[in-house]
Amino acid sequence: MTTYAPSDDLESDPRIKAVFDDIRATRGTDFINNMWRWLAVDPALLERTWAEVKEVVGKPSAIDPLTKEMIYIAVSVANNCSYCIHSHTAAARAKGMSEEQYGELLAIIGLAGKTNQLATALQVPVDDVFDAGRHRPAAG
Amino acid sequence: MTTYAPSDDLESDPRIKAVFDDIRATRGTDFINNMWRWLAVDPALLERTWAEVKEVVGKPSAIDPLTKEMIYIAVSVANNCSYCIHSHTAAARAKGMSEEQYGELLAIIGLAGKTNQLATALQVPVDDVFDAGRHRPAAG
Amino acid sequence: MTTYAPSDDLESDPRIKAVFDDIRATRGTDFINNMWRWLAVDPALLERTWAEVKEVVGKPSAIDPLTKEMIYIAVSVANNCSYCIHSHTAAARAKGMSEEQYGELLAIIGLAGKTNQLATALQVPVDDVFDAGRHRPAAG
Amino acid sequence: MTTYAPSDDLESDPRIKAVFDDIRATRGTDFINNMWRWLAVDPALLERTWAEVKEVVGKPSAIDPLTKEMIYIAVSVANNCSYCIHSHTAAARAKGMSEEQYGELLAIIGLAGKTNQLATALQVPVDDVFDAGRHRPAAG
Amino acid sequence: MTTYAPSDDLESDPRIKAVFDDIRATRGTDFINNMWRWLAVDPALLERTWAEVKEVVGKPSAIDPLTKEMIYIAVSVANNCSYCIHSHTAAARAKGMSEEQYGELLAIIGLAGKTNQLATALQVPVDDVFDAGRHRPAAG
Amino acid sequence: MTTYAPSDDLESDPRIKAVFDDIRATRGTDFINNMWRWLAVDPALLERTWAEVKEVVGKPSAIDPLTKEMIYIAVSVANNCSYCIHSHTAAARAKGMSEEQYGELLAIIGLAGKTNQLATALQVPVDDVFDAGRHRPAAG
Repeated sequence: MTTYAPSDDLESDPRIKAVFDDIRATRGTDFINNMWRWLAVDPALLERTWAEVKEVVGKPSAIDPLTKEMIYIAVSVANNCSYCIHSHTAAARAKGMSEEQYGELLAIIGLAGKTNQLATALQVPVDDVFDAGRHRPAAG
Repeated sequence: MTTYAPSDDLESDPRIKAVFDDIRATRGTDFINNMWRWLAVDPALLERTWAEVKEVVGKPSAIDPLTKEMIYIAVSVANNCSYCIHSHTAAARAKGMSEEQYGELLAIIGLAGKTNQLATALQVPVDDVFDAGRHRPAAG
Repeated sequence: MTTYAPSDDLESDPRIKAVFDDIRATRGTDFINNMWRWLAVDPALLERTWAEVKEVVGKPSAIDPLTKEMIYIAVSVANNCSYCIHSHTAAARAKGMSEEQYGELLAIIGLAGKTNQLATALQVPVDDVFDAGRHRPAAG
Repeated sequence: MTTYAPSDDLESDPRIKAVFDDIRATRGTDFINNMWRWLAVDPALLERTWAEVKEVVGKPSAIDPLTKEMIYIAVSVANNCSYCIHSHTAAARAKGMSEEQYGELLAIIGLAGKTNQLATALQVPVDDVFDAGRHRPAAG
Repeated sequence: MTTYAPSDDLESDPRIKAVFDDIRATRGTDFINNMWRWLAVDPALLERTWAEVKEVVGKPSAIDPLTKEMIYIAVSVANNCSYCIHSHTAAARAKGMSEEQYGELLAIIGLAGKTNQLATALQVPVDDVFDAGRHRPAAG
Repeated sequence: MTTYAPSDDLESDPRIKAVFDDIRATRGTDFINNMWRWLAVDPALLERTWAEVKEVVGKPSAIDPLTKEMIYIAVSVANNCSYCIHSHTAAARAKGMSEEQYGELLAIIGLAGKTNQLATALQVPVDDVFDAGRHRPAAG
């Protein structure tokens, strides 16, 4: 079930077609996954989101592509986004995530879920040494 | 404020002392951060949690130490654990996270937060190609 | 799948029948959506919840009906309640939400999801000017 | 910091005074904790919330009072409500929660946090035997 | 406490200065709230986020400015972002939110929080009539 | 759909077989629910998780078995883990949860969800009397 049904003729809208063409060219495949077809509900939202994905996930940068996908999975699990968990787990595998790495990723996510709850339940005070602002020079 | 106040004499309990000694030996420092002092509310919980942290985060493995910390930060942000965000951001920096990497980590977490909400709002159906079970051989 | 299966004869319980009759009368339809049939697991819970929905969402008030539904969608997305996202998106459309408004609602929810994560990740200190308590007169 | 500052003269509003009087009489104390003073922002909301708390938490019922508080703590931790964690942990202790029970409660909350994330990450299919609807008689 | 400490000299970076100048010009005030100073940790992230805020929240559109702020508050509460709750509650008041509207907003957020949990606990099946895809024409 | 497909021959791995044998012996049934089959993606994770479940949920302790299951349900609902809600609701029923208790559990979870959101929205300051650290003796 879904709350929105994209038409079968999305690409008759030139703004949508331009984004889809860029997705196909960037990824080197004709496949457009559902996320983009659903975001077409609002062409401006589609354009902005794709531009941000290209910028943040798609460009060579200081974090390698597989690590980016594993971080994306981690956030998606904690936020409980079923679609995103599926799509980014597939993407991580496509970028070389081994089953051993997947098992470790799960172990970290599970452990973090546990210690997150424990620190929250106990309302553990943050240690002073963890405060990045403690050495901040006074203004002026 | 906190929901629990550890005594000043936690290490008079030999089980607690043994864990704290191992934390100090493992990390090469006398500093015991608050998380462990608060978990001492239940020595068995303290022992299990430290053992799991050593196993999952502390051992050489298929995911490098800095990546593990960045994944830990990502989960902690999505779960909104203030203590954990502080402690693991500090740990990531201690393991060499550059400001450039930190900025990119934030960008990924923010983008994932956004696309998680969008996929959930639209209840986007998962594409068949993302289903790891689709090629599963039938039993027998 | 579900964790509870309502009987086919719910309205043989007069408390349940009274609530369902009021739902039908209030909404001018014979349709009782699943939420109410499932809440009948506990007639007192059903009565209280329907009374609260009538009071909070159903009465003319300082926030217009469509805005109420959009706020309800926003909370339901952030809380990841699939049922609620479906039912309140349908309700918003029934109350006149245009596709343009829907697209904008999605854009706001997505942006908030992103900036929520960023402010949490950075543990941004709240500016003094945002503290509603700062001008509070001293007691006595 | 806060987003609302209750006046020092809340009880000049007879609706607010009536609720506060009932809280004091029900609990046998003059102390009104901040939650109720802040909910007075909207007297109808204050009245409904107090009535619901009396009904759900305050009345003798099939779940004993301490268990109710532990369940309340569990939800509040998972929802990350700092105020609620503090107030219900204090309430559980006032109702007799031992330190041993508190430690076990934390262990369950932590373990659930972990297995919740793991099941979500793996998108584990629900076993048929857990579906309460599987034996539901057909309508008619 | 915070995980990042912006320098006192942020605007010596021309990219940061350009964004801050635009914030001041757009809002007609010299005040730059902490969110933007912290996002300056990554100038590209700052630029993208401000551009998106201007586009989504700042432009005249099909949803009025006060409603946008109330939706933003709703998401921020459900996501538990303390900074965002403070800043957007202040913004909503600046845009004319009355105390009556604030009380109603709280009532809707609270009710949604309750029914979200109930629908999730009962795993209520989505009614067919809420499925936007049910009338979707077949492809081809 | 799922992000992982366990093989049909999991128990050819002796570590997995040992855990499954212990699950069967401990529970007195041949049934292995999906959670354990999926966790077998990483035998070490499977071993640790089962050991923790046995320790935390399976042993006689200061919290009775049914209460443990109700707490587990409460966390799973707030964390929105569909699998866990199903499995632990079934487990609670198997341990004797009556429909009356189930209705009350739902009422508490729903009320907590509501008051959690309200306290968060209002950013209600924690009362001093709820601070467990307020009477803590000074060190030394």
